[in-house]
Amino acid sequence: MTIGILGGGQLGYMLALAGYPLNFHFRFLDPSPQAPVGRIAPRVTAEYTDFEALEKFASGLALVTYEFENVPVEAVRFLQKRLPVYPSPRALETAQDRRSEKKLFQNLGIPTTEFVAVDSRDELEQAVRKLGLPAILKTCRLGYDGKGQWLLRTNEDVARIAKEIPAMPLVLEKFVHFSRELSILAVRARDGKTAFYPLVENRHREGILRLSLAPAPRHTAGLQREAEQSALRVLEALDYVGVLAIELFECDGRLLANEMAPRVHNSGHWSIEGAVTSQFENHLRAVAGLPLGDTRTVGYSAMLNLIGELPDSSELLAVPDAHLHIYGKTLRPGREVGHVTHRAHSGEQLASRLEELPRFFHRQEFCLTPNLVTSAK
Amino acid sequence: MTIGILGGGQLGYMLALAGYPLNFHFRFLDPSPQAPVGRIAPRVTAEYTDFEALEKFASGLALVTYEFENVPVEAVRFLQKRLPVYPSPRALETAQDRRSEKKLFQNLGIPTTEFVAVDSRDELEQAVRKLGLPAILKTCRLGYDGKGQWLLRTNEDVARIAKEIPAMPLVLEKFVHFSRELSILAVRARDGKTAFYPLVENRHREGILRLSLAPAPRHTAGLQREAEQSALRVLEALDYVGVLAIELFECDGRLLANEMAPRVHNSGHWSIEGAVTSQFENHLRAVAGLPLGDTRTVGYSAMLNLIGELPDSSELLAVPDAHLHIYGKTLRPGREVGHVTHRAHSGEQLASRLEELPRFFHRQEFCLTPNLVTSAK
Repeated sequence: MTIGILGGGQLGYMLALAGYPLNFHFRFLDPSPQAPVGRIAPRVTAEYTDFEALEKFASGLALVTYEFENVPVEAVRFLQKRLPVYPSPRALETAQDRRSEKKLFQNLGIPTTEFVAVDSRDELEQAVRKLGLPAILKTCRLGYDGKGQWLLRTNEDVARIAKEIPAMPLVLEKFVHFSRELSILAVRARDGKTAFYPLVENRHREGILRLSLAPAPRHTAGLQREAEQSALRVLEALDYVGVLAIELFECDGRLLANEMAPRVHNSGHWSIEGAVTSQFENHLRAVAGLPLGDTRTVGYSAMLNLIGELPDSSELLAVPDAHLHIYGKTLRPGREVGHVTHRAHSGEQLASRLEELPRFFHRQEFCLTPNLVTSAK
Repeated sequence: MTIGILGGGQLGYMLALAGYPLNFHFRFLDPSPQAPVGRIAPRVTAEYTDFEALEKFASGLALVTYEFENVPVEAVRFLQKRLPVYPSPRALETAQDRRSEKKLFQNLGIPTTEFVAVDSRDELEQAVRKLGLPAILKTCRLGYDGKGQWLLRTNEDVARIAKEIPAMPLVLEKFVHFSRELSILAVRARDGKTAFYPLVENRHREGILRLSLAPAPRHTAGLQREAEQSALRVLEALDYVGVLAIELFECDGRLLANEMAPRVHNSGHWSIEGAVTSQFENHLRAVAGLPLGDTRTVGYSAMLNLIGELPDSSELLAVPDAHLHIYGKTLRPGREVGHVTHRAHSGEQLASRLEELPRFFHRQEFCLTPNLVTSAK
């Protein structure tokens, strides 16, 4: 079975590495001739909206999936007329737009941050009056890694952004004092069966994920149930097939849905070593119509994202149970070029291993403090 | 760093899958245009003794290793004049010849089965007088999966084989009533550091490995120490770099070395899921001059070799903690086309999982009986 994947970045690359042992073949489509999958799989280099290239790409494939949520929906709809596409174009379309994503959460009774749609300067001012300050103005589309967001603390901030308000759909969100960010990775099979990974705690800096702890410290059955119920509603509402990630804020012991990604997710990379079945394998099992794999953890994991630079492999690999994943991308500041998963028998052992990491990992940016076991407040 | 690998079979394929995340690139050389690595790595299709092709193959590589122990030694020596080759040509040469292998074991004080070199009919008859019957006559070179071996039970067997004795170096080995076959996987780094996987119990049928249990049932610290001491002597005597496998017979609580393989080994496949660091990653770490990874187990594993046919993926993947590895080879009777690793929290849980396997796995050939926990006698 040959699976077509739209997007040839590190997520596609890890999908292929997970899929070869299951006898899947792959074909990728990516606009960049430098896409990381190039060294391990055949690939079509073309724009997503090059329909002639899409036609060629689709030929002989069993199905198509995607590893990038900003694939134009028309590309996915074009392919869906020819062969199965998972997750569905509707899931992709919903996740590409903050308004439709938040409306979906609301319609399904999933708590989310208060928000107001904003399309003009006047609407911004009305929205600020309604929600108060501080608040965050976000573009509805194409935001990632903290780009396309403006924190408005004062009326001066509002006046400044109002003058040069982007000519695109926006939402204003009430600023939430959350105690931490969590995410839930869920997977739904073609037959409707579902599985959920344990909640993960995520720490960001400059809008980029730096650290995921799996399972999340201070994990409770109640939080897990709440997150699974929300994820299940989304999966069923969208007749979803594949892995779905939902980012959540924990506020006063309750969860607020922030956003979702209709694909394998950076906060699930730990699952390669830290779960019985990785998110990558489970996504492939789901889209290919195979039974889902066990999502339980194997020990306690910390995933550290490598941004813009790589540690010395010798130093890193001397750490017990450290697992290095380099994506084969050109190093560039702010770019995710790899990750490391540290695994341990207990949260305590994990915390003490992380404290003894090579100097490279002691930079502030990995968010290794505050305490990893009792965790952040 | 680009690593050259001689041989493009499943072992090379799994080396590449383990090596990409560490940022290694690969180039393979294999005489077959159907070699399994073809879909995931660049490859030169040429005979091992095509020196022009070897020259081209070597260009730009950081080092060379091999995944097949019958690579002609002259190919490896040719390459060694141009770049580092691990394990050394001497290790390869020793392992290719049963006599030199057994002499090495003897010289290092490693217990082995009694044997006599045989080069003629007369020598065969003398050897039988010396060792008695039953005994096993083996070719010194190119034997694998039970090929090139003749069990001699009676004088009639001896007379029959004596008439058509192969015109090649042979050894006659005393037949040993062993209680089971074990193997030890050892790895030595470029700086001389070593690590050892726990002893594995192996069950063969028709000369082909069918089942490995890791760690071996009834594993004791004494057996492990004995096996590690033997392996360490071989590693040091050969100034070995990389993974080495030694197959052992357990006889009356002692270990006899049977043969060795200067490469990653079928009886180490369980380590992909069942050890902190797989044999494939550890081989690459060793040859590349990186620190060795932790060889401890993660749970209890059973590796079932898939010979000539594949199970239904849906049925198999419904089994908890079952991990499928398909090599992408054409299905043919007697051919290793994949393996499955079952992992569990305890030997008991593993045994009960194996009892509930899909029908495909209940065929005699997987050697799933006798009892997997208390194990064979």
